[in-house]
Amino acid sequence: MQLIEGGICAAKGFTAGGVHCGIRKSRTKKDISLIYSEVPASCAAVYTTNLVKGAPLVVTKEHLADGRAQAVICNSGNANTCNANGIEIAEGMADLAASRLGISPSDVVVASTGVIGEPMTLEPIAAGMDALISSLYADGSADAAEGIMTTDTIRKEVAVEFTLGGKTCRLGGIAKGSGMIHPNMATMLVFITTDAAIAPDMLQKALSGDIAGTFNMVSVDGDTSTNDMVVVLANGLAGNELITAEGEDFSAFMKALNTVTVRLCRLIAGDGEGATKLLECQVTGAASLPDARKVAKSVICSSLLKAAMFGADANWGRVLCAIGYSGVPLDVTLIDVAFRSNAGKISVCKGGAGVPFSEDTAKAILSEKEITIDVSLNQGSASATAWGCDLTYDYVKINGDYRT
Amino acid sequence: MQLIEGGICAAKGFTAGGVHCGIRKSRTKKDISLIYSEVPASCAAVYTTNLVKGAPLVVTKEHLADGRAQAVICNSGNANTCNANGIEIAEGMADLAASRLGISPSDVVVASTGVIGEPMTLEPIAAGMDALISSLYADGSADAAEGIMTTDTIRKEVAVEFTLGGKTCRLGGIAKGSGMIHPNMATMLVFITTDAAIAPDMLQKALSGDIAGTFNMVSVDGDTSTNDMVVVLANGLAGNELITAEGEDFSAFMKALNTVTVRLCRLIAGDGEGATKLLECQVTGAASLPDARKVAKSVICSSLLKAAMFGADANWGRVLCAIGYSGVPLDVTLIDVAFRSNAGKISVCKGGAGVPFSEDTAKAILSEKEITIDVSLNQGSASATAWGCDLTYDYVKINGDYRT
Repeated sequence: MQLIEGGICAAKGFTAGGVHCGIRKSRTKKDISLIYSEVPASCAAVYTTNLVKGAPLVVTKEHLADGRAQAVICNSGNANTCNANGIEIAEGMADLAASRLGISPSDVVVASTGVIGEPMTLEPIAAGMDALISSLYADGSADAAEGIMTTDTIRKEVAVEFTLGGKTCRLGGIAKGSGMIHPNMATMLVFITTDAAIAPDMLQKALSGDIAGTFNMVSVDGDTSTNDMVVVLANGLAGNELITAEGEDFSAFMKALNTVTVRLCRLIAGDGEGATKLLECQVTGAASLPDARKVAKSVICSSLLKAAMFGADANWGRVLCAIGYSGVPLDVTLIDVAFRSNAGKISVCKGGAGVPFSEDTAKAILSEKEITIDVSLNQGSASATAWGCDLTYDYVKINGDYRT
Repeated sequence: MQLIEGGICAAKGFTAGGVHCGIRKSRTKKDISLIYSEVPASCAAVYTTNLVKGAPLVVTKEHLADGRAQAVICNSGNANTCNANGIEIAEGMADLAASRLGISPSDVVVASTGVIGEPMTLEPIAAGMDALISSLYADGSADAAEGIMTTDTIRKEVAVEFTLGGKTCRLGGIAKGSGMIHPNMATMLVFITTDAAIAPDMLQKALSGDIAGTFNMVSVDGDTSTNDMVVVLANGLAGNELITAEGEDFSAFMKALNTVTVRLCRLIAGDGEGATKLLECQVTGAASLPDARKVAKSVICSSLLKAAMFGADANWGRVLCAIGYSGVPLDVTLIDVAFRSNAGKISVCKGGAGVPFSEDTAKAILSEKEITIDVSLNQGSASATAWGCDLTYDYVKINGDYRT
């Protein structure tokens, strides 16, 4: 398996595009994206666990009841959530895309991201459909990735090439992250395409199995969005034998999927709202996998630790504190903690108590862009990784006046 | 019942004091406090649920096994947590206070607040004992309140006068709040004194019953501290008939306690680290009390809403979002939301959807120092209130480099 360019257009038969249609005021910011597969594809999705759900999620869920889709339309600038006519708007978006692409509206995935509760009309989208359809290109992944960005500062695209039964397959994804990111099922918008042939139920199994250790382990601010979804389209054009059960091919597919999703997680966490640093918490020695995940997420979600990391302050007591309130039964006197980055590694806590360390060395390690917090629980053999970011002045600035 | 001055020295027989002994570098900041009852008192306490517990909590829990105490010693500047010799230090603090006061070490409550995992010695405390004992005065509540402050910007003292069976009683408290405040049992340090006569088990019942709706409904940053405790001493000097069971007197005592604790909650929330505003979320119409509390806490804990309130931005979608991920089963289409302050009230959401409102009016309402978020769930008759604060640049600044 190797990383390749091309994002969601890396896989055979997929085109994508993105334009500015007028949902956002700024003409320089793309606000609508389209992804299209030249043949119908198996499609699987996971959605936010928030009870307040964006109208697009309701419509998409209906459309994917048959495990099949051929296109994704997604706007930014308005979440189409808590609007009286939300379903109508979401269905209208699917209809507009379907009629231009000559496919059934029920084969269209609809997604929206932006302000909640802001009135929305179909007008700008209808007016922009010509341009949107014309923007569909085999190298359009970057444009589509831009069209779904909100406060993201970088485009998020990843793709890999791998083989299934001797056939070359490709799988790539784009993501929108930034704020309102918290690990409670499917956080953020992620669209993944592949030319691998895989049955809808196995695709769903692969996706549901993957997110527990990937997108559900990312937190920017502890807020679970109303509009999150992760969608995978698999159009089968790679020509591999259709995956209909577990086995070698399914494992290879899972590995390719995981390679892309882990990288997207790191991109999303590192580009969290206002973030200056990617934080990764690696927990080892837990009694069980759920324990390991709970501890890793608790550490990565601590506002106090996030602020300390922003200040490159090796305040490891906050790591212990977050482990202590994670809800996992633990023997605190067995826990070791270390901080690590490209600048080196430093042990700060052994057996639940502090060990002397050089503040200068710690400062140098924590001044890097990517910090790993190593937590050795020493009470079992399970491990997990969670991703987050530091808490900065800019997070407050961005969210103090998001709507204007 | 009426509010009175005097804090923890309002009740008969209590003296208190606070001095600088050298745990902190700054000589202008008091770092140790003492509270003393001239007779042994019934004593009840609740502690943090964090598995990582400060050594003082372990020692205090042992000392209070008999429901009796006569003094409280508390330092700031060091949490005495995750230190190899923590128990020894905490016991040493109790011994030092006990020998000077001529009481048993087991009648001393010990508490500490400050940095976790910082080595600590008894030396400054031993050296400062003369001054600390000399600082015990009948008007020493303010000094004691200062001695336990960390990043608090204001002293927190409240007292009330009430009657039990015709006898005048007083009950007062001091608190230290600011950061690492989250509602998982007994968050922050709170010391309460009263001259009411009440048996230890009834005092514990009163305290445990009260905190579910008071201190457990306060969140500053979602981090549950390792050192939190709420302690009540009742020395009986008011001369009322000893409360040994539920009834009129117990209810009157509960009411006095609640009057003080609610005020301390508001002081703690409004003075959260970096806070410029007190946020209060009043939930009505919930199907059950636990539901009402969960929703109120979820709203008050949302980083996104907290940042919006800092910016006086009426981004009510974030209120709906936080209600949606509270874990409470709800019909979203019944929910109404309004913002309220001294500048007026504005309805922003009816039946789960936005209603038109004046942004100027909303801005004026949200620019006040105390904001109430009214959430009407309209699916039952239970209600609850939670307190928090806005998320500001200063929270990040304070916590980006707390240890220096």
